Amino acid sequence: MRTVSLREPRKFSPDRMQKVGLFETDHCFSDLYCFEPGQVQQLHSHEGADKIYVVLEGKGTFTVDGERQELSPETAVLAPSGSQHGVENTSSDRLVLLVFMAPNPNKAQA
Amino acid sequence: MRTVSLREPRKFSPDRMQKVGLFETDHCFSDLYCFEPGQVQQLHSHEGADKIYVVLEGKGTFTVDGERQELSPETAVLAPSGSQHGVENTSSDRLVLLVFMAPNPNKAQA
Repeated sequence: MRTVSLREPRKFSPDRMQKVGLFETDHCFSDLYCFEPGQVQQLHSHEGADKIYVVLEGKGTFTVDGERQELSPETAVLAPSGSQHGVENTSSDRLVLLVFMAPNPNKAQA
Repeated sequence: MRTVSLREPRKFSPDRMQKVGLFETDHCFSDLYCFEPGQVQQLHSHEGADKIYVVLEGKGTFTVDGERQELSPETAVLAPSGSQHGVENTSSDRLVLLVFMAPNPNKAQA
């Protein structure tokens, strides 16, 4: 059975936010994103793939298609296919996100 | 921006485990599963779709292709396409899971 901890694999760098892969399948992947204060995931978009961010720890300021909102743990946000989206850790604490994306852009779809 | 709380929409029933839809897109969906003690999601499988369970609260006994394991919060488990999988709340407290599935079986894939 493939299980993963959402705690143990977290890693942080003073250089930039860190992505930690949890699961990757033909249809989707799941990562942890780990931000020190002030670090960002720049605005970007994925045509044909939807992303869900879940706040696990800290507070993140999310942007989706120009709308900005600060979100706290136990909250999730959808970045639909084609939307311009990004995240900034505007708090003074670490920010940890659980991220799901489907389909998996690294795999040809069946 | 489409945001959801992972806390407020939880619902429980003495009759059976409850599924609460969070997001549904062309490519995936996300639900909360809410179990009273003793409630189960029976073994089943989805050909062509992968499921990820994340334990938010309580303890769940997961089965994937005959392997059983009790998992606690901050743990996730993959039920790959075609695997026989299910969950049982073998604890004396409520169990809440965050579930992702891709592709979305309710949508024709592009």
